[in-house]
Amino acid sequence: MATVVQKFGGTSVATADKIRRAAGRAIAAREAGHHVIVVVSARGQTTDELVDLAHEITSRPSAREMDQLLSTGEQISIALVAMAIHAMGHGAISFTGGQVGLVTDSVHTKARIQKVDVERLKEQFAQGKIVIVAGFQGVDAHQNITTLGRGGSDTTAVALAAAMKMAGEKEIVCEIYTDVDGVYTADPRKVPTARKLDVISYEEMLELASLGAGVMHSRAVEFGKKFDIPIHVRSSLNDSKGTMITKEAASMEGIVVRGAALTRELAKVTIRAVPDTPGVAAKIFHEIAAANIVVDDIIQNISSDGQTDLSFTVAETDADDVADVAHRLAKEIGAGAVEFDKNISKVSIVGVGMRSHTGVAEKMFKALANARINIQMITTSEIKISCIIRRQDAEASLKAVHDAFQLNDEA
Amino acid sequence: MATVVQKFGGTSVATADKIRRAAGRAIAAREAGHHVIVVVSARGQTTDELVDLAHEITSRPSAREMDQLLSTGEQISIALVAMAIHAMGHGAISFTGGQVGLVTDSVHTKARIQKVDVERLKEQFAQGKIVIVAGFQGVDAHQNITTLGRGGSDTTAVALAAAMKMAGEKEIVCEIYTDVDGVYTADPRKVPTARKLDVISYEEMLELASLGAGVMHSRAVEFGKKFDIPIHVRSSLNDSKGTMITKEAASMEGIVVRGAALTRELAKVTIRAVPDTPGVAAKIFHEIAAANIVVDDIIQNISSDGQTDLSFTVAETDADDVADVAHRLAKEIGAGAVEFDKNISKVSIVGVGMRSHTGVAEKMFKALANARINIQMITTSEIKISCIIRRQDAEASLKAVHDAFQLNDEA
Repeated sequence: MATVVQKFGGTSVATADKIRRAAGRAIAAREAGHHVIVVVSARGQTTDELVDLAHEITSRPSAREMDQLLSTGEQISIALVAMAIHAMGHGAISFTGGQVGLVTDSVHTKARIQKVDVERLKEQFAQGKIVIVAGFQGVDAHQNITTLGRGGSDTTAVALAAAMKMAGEKEIVCEIYTDVDGVYTADPRKVPTARKLDVISYEEMLELASLGAGVMHSRAVEFGKKFDIPIHVRSSLNDSKGTMITKEAASMEGIVVRGAALTRELAKVTIRAVPDTPGVAAKIFHEIAAANIVVDDIIQNISSDGQTDLSFTVAETDADDVADVAHRLAKEIGAGAVEFDKNISKVSIVGVGMRSHTGVAEKMFKALANARINIQMITTSEIKISCIIRRQDAEASLKAVHDAFQLNDEA
Repeated sequence: MATVVQKFGGTSVATADKIRRAAGRAIAAREAGHHVIVVVSARGQTTDELVDLAHEITSRPSAREMDQLLSTGEQISIALVAMAIHAMGHGAISFTGGQVGLVTDSVHTKARIQKVDVERLKEQFAQGKIVIVAGFQGVDAHQNITTLGRGGSDTTAVALAAAMKMAGEKEIVCEIYTDVDGVYTADPRKVPTARKLDVISYEEMLELASLGAGVMHSRAVEFGKKFDIPIHVRSSLNDSKGTMITKEAASMEGIVVRGAALTRELAKVTIRAVPDTPGVAAKIFHEIAAANIVVDDIIQNISSDGQTDLSFTVAETDADDVADVAHRLAKEIGAGAVEFDKNISKVSIVGVGMRSHTGVAEKMFKALANARINIQMITTSEIKISCIIRRQDAEASLKAVHDAFQLNDEA
């Protein structure tokens, strides 16, 4: 007997039929003898509709009241899923984040989980019930409702699995049901030869998640990594095996590159002739963060004549905002010209095997060169190599590296 | 400085404009220096939509899960009202029933309030904030969400006022904002000469509420009576004074009849030749209650030859259900024929002054006789006289008694 956590996203509970299908999966796991926790998101368009209601009232709703408002979306879902399980003749009970004792800090709209009380779960398991938990939400120490921000329901699912593990449960399964079959070597809409992976390490998934592969949010993967919870990403539409996200196994090193990803809409900012004195970079990125702009990559080469060129990338949607800040900063710190390029993309390859293999970067650069794609900038981490390229080469570059590393072949 | 509780029903928060208007009223009370609690219902059609969602899943949703589902309606309202107050530059915070510490028993869908924790309200008042509370809902001792059933939001408002009073607040105002101006001597849609009452006693309002005058639910009035909370029923559309529901004052006895009411859709059941032995009536009404049928009035005259005719009235919509039960019961207890009349109505007059005045019944019967309306049955209480009449005479009978007691004249 295991503890099975099943998470269903908004599209998987969007209609009565889909709710019944999710209920059927939970019942199947229960009938197999497991303790079952079902985590659900708000249905289909519910969150958007609630946001629209708020915006009819004010353009700047308070974060606390937004959380009061948005948390109703999951509460509706959990009640409906519990009703569906009842209608199919099984015991079930729904809990909001607060009811299940999921306590967070008080940072509304992007709260972080502090603890989960498993007693209420265990009481229900003892009665044979399937427990339905509202994803994405919790309460702070004063019973204020909080929400976890993007990827929140995935995080709820993994956190509940982790809490059960810490409470002494030996066998934990965490299943994320989604509208794709699993994690692919590349986005299959862009690379038709992309292949579904049976297994991927947390680290690789983190790089792919932050690169926009989008199957799971990086925060939930981090949670899984921290508590060593294997996460099974699979389709809600069929019964085929998906992708298991798990800790790095020795066997994984045989595969040098696990996947390739594209971040399409990026903008590049270069500040020329930045004085090479301590604290300048810190000042620049402090000001950019203060403007609520998330910086993707930062590239600074060695200086000459006490000056250096500093480049960084941001989401294209932040390009105009960052321009104001960059111009002001350049003046303040006595730097040279500021250059912008709104038409860039980033292609990346990821794999834990890179650590112990040589020639990976060379192979990637050669693949791009053969496709006549110019590399503008390069950044690397221990398990990732990224190249900044022109937007018009985006899809071609992804295909080129995917082919070069033969990611379509079964390893 | 008083504590002001303002309750807005679903139609009063149905649109962004109406929400802003409700917010404006709360702010006006706050600016007058009062502590302000705003109680809101679910918006317009929200509850119906949620019920429809449940019925897409199952025809018999569990009561607990219905409460989880329906309570989101008020939660949406409170967040939006708080946002509107913020947008108008004032401090406000919203609380669900659970957050404000409104604890009920565990009877889902018709829970009864057990206690209200005023500490959280006081904390917010100390910060100068307007507190928005979700009506209709609470939590039981195990944090299960409960709802209070019909008239629940009115009851929440009066209960919060009562809790503040018990906590030592001297001056309490409880305002029920609705889409009518107040309580009338009769339903103004049926009696154009009906007049708005400035004041009415709890007892009179209870009789009128149970007779379907419908401005306020009897449960909230009972709560007001129990804790002596004056309730001001007034229009959300204008600033005119409404009707104050309050305890009986000596001056009230001068007015013999306060108002008249009509219960239009009733059905009458008569069981002939019921054996006049102890326990028979108890058995009959036990079985009817077990079939979830609410009996309106019961009339039994003295027996002759050890038998009696027993009549009672029910809502016309329950007529078919009650027929099955009545036929079965008549056979079981050895009674005679069962007769039905689905075409009856009830006209009533109400007034605490009746207690000390004679000739009131006579005047009512004469008014109906003059209008050539036949009285089928009569029941009375200390402050009410009701006559069962044919449905076709319903409106005429209401006008006749309203005129006879000169209810259109200012007292």
